[in-house]
Amino acid sequence: MARVIYNTASTLNGFLADEQDSLSWLFAVGGGEAPDTEAFLRGMGAIVMGSTTYEWILRQERILEQRGRWQELGYMASLPAFVFTTRSLPAPEGADVRFVRGAVADALPEVVRAAGEKDVWVMGGGDLAGQFLDARALDEVQVSVAPVTLPGGRPLLPRRVESDTLELRSAERFGQFVHLTYGVRRAAGG
Amino acid sequence: MARVIYNTASTLNGFLADEQDSLSWLFAVGGGEAPDTEAFLRGMGAIVMGSTTYEWILRQERILEQRGRWQELGYMASLPAFVFTTRSLPAPEGADVRFVRGAVADALPEVVRAAGEKDVWVMGGGDLAGQFLDARALDEVQVSVAPVTLPGGRPLLPRRVESDTLELRSAERFGQFVHLTYGVRRAAGG
Repeated sequence: MARVIYNTASTLNGFLADEQDSLSWLFAVGGGEAPDTEAFLRGMGAIVMGSTTYEWILRQERILEQRGRWQELGYMASLPAFVFTTRSLPAPEGADVRFVRGAVADALPEVVRAAGEKDVWVMGGGDLAGQFLDARALDEVQVSVAPVTLPGGRPLLPRRVESDTLELRSAERFGQFVHLTYGVRRAAGG
Repeated sequence: MARVIYNTASTLNGFLADEQDSLSWLFAVGGGEAPDTEAFLRGMGAIVMGSTTYEWILRQERILEQRGRWQELGYMASLPAFVFTTRSLPAPEGADVRFVRGAVADALPEVVRAAGEKDVWVMGGGDLAGQFLDARALDEVQVSVAPVTLPGGRPLLPRRVESDTLELRSAERFGQFVHLTYGVRRAAGG
């Protein structure tokens, strides 16, 4: 059975992006080191995201495409991606993008089937991750904490989730980042 | 010269307390282990806090006082405490509580003098810590991250502080908590 993992970078005070959906603060973090993204990606069989995250990726793709380097966003080219949205959005040629409407619980069987033996990566945003939690569909929360705070922005996880639900499994330092892994006790609920 | 240290517990998504100023989620964290508070306190010569934090402490004191155990809140009994407030608030008998109005920069010399050779502990809240940062008066940020998220509440540090200002010094696990220590580059600014 595939595990469903919410994995994201965040500021120290719980924001995924600033109020303009910018990640400039994140890319400005020095130190060069980061968790082993390639190893993480090898374990993933499908990606899930909300429309804001998807549109951010599309903007990055347009920049890379102009430079003939579209394939650098390799995870989008090689894995089925489920985008939760009520809007009509474009899909890049060659990418397996599937648009989903409605409840997480309804879409979950298809997402898990697409992932096969592998895991499902919930990229964000925080409210979609919260919907997975509400649906008792989240197994793990992984957060790479950056040495940054913001006065506001896109929230990491806008839910009340107490310590009977989240269990710290590991805390690893990578340069200026701290990568935290929490197991989600599904029975205890979100 | 005393260092000025903002040390607090926080949820994973950057809240010090919930919207009702409750810390019930914090005290519910199991595991028993915590950073060595006594060793931290031995290094402190003065405490600084905002009025919400102070009133929270007064409420705890009232509970302990009723049980004849007021001295359990030892740091308040043994260290000079500076409370930033424009209101008139009570002070418990025997405690050295000094009420301060106005800008952090104006109060800082007296705070540092009171701390002597020791350090200054900024307990919170987040906006007061932000005012210390704005005044280039903060040397270190220490956050004990709990395995909890909240949908809203009292913010950890409502400021834009990027990675040219915060530098991760250490990340230590204590049971279910991760204690993060960041140096503040004063020159780079808040």
